[in-house]
Amino acid sequence: MYGELIKYVKDAGVLASVGELLGWDYEVTMPRGASSLREMEMSLVASLRHKMLTDPRIGELLAKIDAGSLSEPEQANVREIRRNYDRALRIPVSLVEKSASLSIRAHEAWQKARATNDFPLFLPFLEQFVEIKRAMALAIGGKEEPYQTLLSEYEPDIRLAELEVFFKEIERSIVPLVEAIAKREVPDTGILKRHVGISKQMKYNRGLAQRLGYDFKKGRLDTAVHPFTGCFGRITTRFADGWAGTISSTVHESGHGMYEHNLPEEHFGTPLGSYRSLGVHESQSRLWENHVGKSLAFWRGEYPRLRKAYAPILDDLSPEAFYRLINVVAPGFIRVNADELTYSLHIALRFEIEKALVCGSLRAKDVPEAWNEGMRRSLGIVPPSDALGCLQDSHWTDGSFGYFPTYTYGSAIAAQLMEAATRSIPSLENEIGSVEVAELNVWLKENIHRHGCRYSTEELVTRATGDVPNPRAYIDYLNRKFRALYSV
Amino acid sequence: MYGELIKYVKDAGVLASVGELLGWDYEVTMPRGASSLREMEMSLVASLRHKMLTDPRIGELLAKIDAGSLSEPEQANVREIRRNYDRALRIPVSLVEKSASLSIRAHEAWQKARATNDFPLFLPFLEQFVEIKRAMALAIGGKEEPYQTLLSEYEPDIRLAELEVFFKEIERSIVPLVEAIAKREVPDTGILKRHVGISKQMKYNRGLAQRLGYDFKKGRLDTAVHPFTGCFGRITTRFADGWAGTISSTVHESGHGMYEHNLPEEHFGTPLGSYRSLGVHESQSRLWENHVGKSLAFWRGEYPRLRKAYAPILDDLSPEAFYRLINVVAPGFIRVNADELTYSLHIALRFEIEKALVCGSLRAKDVPEAWNEGMRRSLGIVPPSDALGCLQDSHWTDGSFGYFPTYTYGSAIAAQLMEAATRSIPSLENEIGSVEVAELNVWLKENIHRHGCRYSTEELVTRATGDVPNPRAYIDYLNRKFRALYSV
Repeated sequence: MYGELIKYVKDAGVLASVGELLGWDYEVTMPRGASSLREMEMSLVASLRHKMLTDPRIGELLAKIDAGSLSEPEQANVREIRRNYDRALRIPVSLVEKSASLSIRAHEAWQKARATNDFPLFLPFLEQFVEIKRAMALAIGGKEEPYQTLLSEYEPDIRLAELEVFFKEIERSIVPLVEAIAKREVPDTGILKRHVGISKQMKYNRGLAQRLGYDFKKGRLDTAVHPFTGCFGRITTRFADGWAGTISSTVHESGHGMYEHNLPEEHFGTPLGSYRSLGVHESQSRLWENHVGKSLAFWRGEYPRLRKAYAPILDDLSPEAFYRLINVVAPGFIRVNADELTYSLHIALRFEIEKALVCGSLRAKDVPEAWNEGMRRSLGIVPPSDALGCLQDSHWTDGSFGYFPTYTYGSAIAAQLMEAATRSIPSLENEIGSVEVAELNVWLKENIHRHGCRYSTEELVTRATGDVPNPRAYIDYLNRKFRALYSV
Repeated sequence: MYGELIKYVKDAGVLASVGELLGWDYEVTMPRGASSLREMEMSLVASLRHKMLTDPRIGELLAKIDAGSLSEPEQANVREIRRNYDRALRIPVSLVEKSASLSIRAHEAWQKARATNDFPLFLPFLEQFVEIKRAMALAIGGKEEPYQTLLSEYEPDIRLAELEVFFKEIERSIVPLVEAIAKREVPDTGILKRHVGISKQMKYNRGLAQRLGYDFKKGRLDTAVHPFTGCFGRITTRFADGWAGTISSTVHESGHGMYEHNLPEEHFGTPLGSYRSLGVHESQSRLWENHVGKSLAFWRGEYPRLRKAYAPILDDLSPEAFYRLINVVAPGFIRVNADELTYSLHIALRFEIEKALVCGSLRAKDVPEAWNEGMRRSLGIVPPSDALGCLQDSHWTDGSFGYFPTYTYGSAIAAQLMEAATRSIPSLENEIGSVEVAELNVWLKENIHRHGCRYSTEELVTRATGDVPNPRAYIDYLNRKFRALYSV
């Protein structure tokens, strides 16, 4: 009976991976004139998948299955399958189709709106998505706060009230730190904007990803307007932010990709073979991007390679000076270009706004104003245009409300994991060379990746670090790192 | 009722296009370590599609539909839907799944076998496919000759007996012509093998495809081990055959791509929006590849661009000399490198062998011997290895028996179409510049592309040319062209 259940679920998982390819191709390789066809394909696959996930036979099997006869991992698989099934049953298929089809048009409208700084062009899509997502949340969660329901889509065990405290603690510590640093002199980062040819960059970034442990036998590195990981761990980067931004994107996405590649293949398509949550996924990308890719310990060993690859632009720069440059703190308009310290403040703003949109206390048309006001309050700057403000991100173009906060949740988990990993591998603190990279990969695979959805996020993090997810390690780390860098 | 029928069929068509993306990605972008996942995806999509195509509701609707109430194109759509439905109903889903899943492994074994000249490595897969395809043919065609049934999969209205006469006529005329030419001196084609950088080639080939009318807003040009067109008219080429071979592949696939792009989008997924048959598809690629891309009329105008793009390697070569070089007749081992004249003899050999395999008069293990003997008879040469012999093509790696003959059938139709188009656009004979290319595109769209499956191949060709498909125009054209070139 367990075997039959798994077969049903696996098919839906395989179909989800087909949907991922449709999405990857859309972002990376598809010519724009094929988008009406792609819209039909995505909508069909989404609806077929929904049909599979809500097949009454799954319900029958779940009702009959004797948990006592199963091993502990099998029980975990059934628990997660039941949760997903109960949830899927409550989502009307018409909303799924509407949402999938709308997202293509919304994405295109958003691209135009951003390019021409025309928020009203995107507004009707934002309004429709707020409506669709509220309707979905009500269908799924009943009397639950709709935003709580949407959050649980991405981070199953998190409570909205706890998350609000989480963000408050971070803001309480980070806002004053940013203000203190703002008074210090900022080094000139012009060198990070110097020209490096694209093929040279691609070559270096491929090598870098490989040295971090990313497996090119399973994956690949391409470019996308917004870097993402999808389709069995394929990663993307972009050149728009200068060569240092490209490196940062590559390292970030490599972290996502390695998580995907290390999930247990024998459980592919079932919860045991799937990533735990967006927060846990983001913990992997942030750990590599920041704790490795923006650490002096890593660049001590890697820097000579970079200097040689991009010669002569780094000939006069020491590794320590490079480390300071990639960690410059400067409040800016764009989230994806934000430094590690101000990043969470960008997320806090989005969290506030989308929460207000979904609960109805903010109308979509008032988003630009709320955005600008929020930026002024937390970062002390106001974007000169919506293109540099509320139109900058793609997340709302498919109604992914509840997605943003997982970034900060993931950053906090990353800090907890890095603390715990450093207890196991003390040399991580001073030097992250090939030996340490390999040991860190083993540690992450052992403690996080191989478990898939076997444990809840809370249990997974507790088993790996001895503590439930919380912002303490993150706040400590940021203070330690940036107070040292800026002597504040 | 017609509307409901179309909805069912369209969904299956959209899913087929999803399967095409899985295939395109497999050939063009997928890292090899993802092949076991891709195998699951392809097998699932094939089986879901089969389920859709055999949905009993389609049968009910087909039984109830009143043809009299429909327009003539709608009637044609229903006729084709009924044919496909009747056919699909007879194919056991287990065979569909087995075949889809086997083809991935067979393809990989074939790649290894070809690289290491190890026919026995590929043999078990070939044997399994002969068995699977015979079983499929028997399930579909009942008492019909199995190879006839497989042929009809690709070229619905063709009769095996007629096709045998077709090939005999071609061989009777072409074999002596090749023998006569073999006595003439062959110009040195070394210039076609000179090095041209890959990015330079990609740029020229993209421009060339665009000048032929290929629409890059809908499609794209990439590279693949075996060039093909798939996934909403995306085209591929390769560099392995030298820069002239790359051009030839690009022009060939552009012909396929333009057919796909010109199919009526409003009928997407239904027979009215689908290509008529493989023979008709190939008529489009061959028309552009040979009647345009290997004609003096075309290169008179295009050659200066090529000479400039690949300077200095063509500085000393006249357009007339270039025309002679790309039309050198020389019996060789490899089909895809064959000149226009000997090409059909390669196809005739494959037709004989696969016919014998399927009817059981030849065992898979005896293919290498039969191959070499056939090559000796028709081309006077024997390949020194199976890699250069029976292992060269990918078609049998997914059991596509019945596919090869459509190449020659298409070449013959191409000659008929070009004759007819030249009656409409007489200047095609002397000069194929941008005006003629545009007129030829309109003529093909008007006479072939826009009809989809509205007419049978026979009716389609008759409407366009005044004659049923037959080898006369093709044989005339080859004799005219090559007798002039070689003064025989």
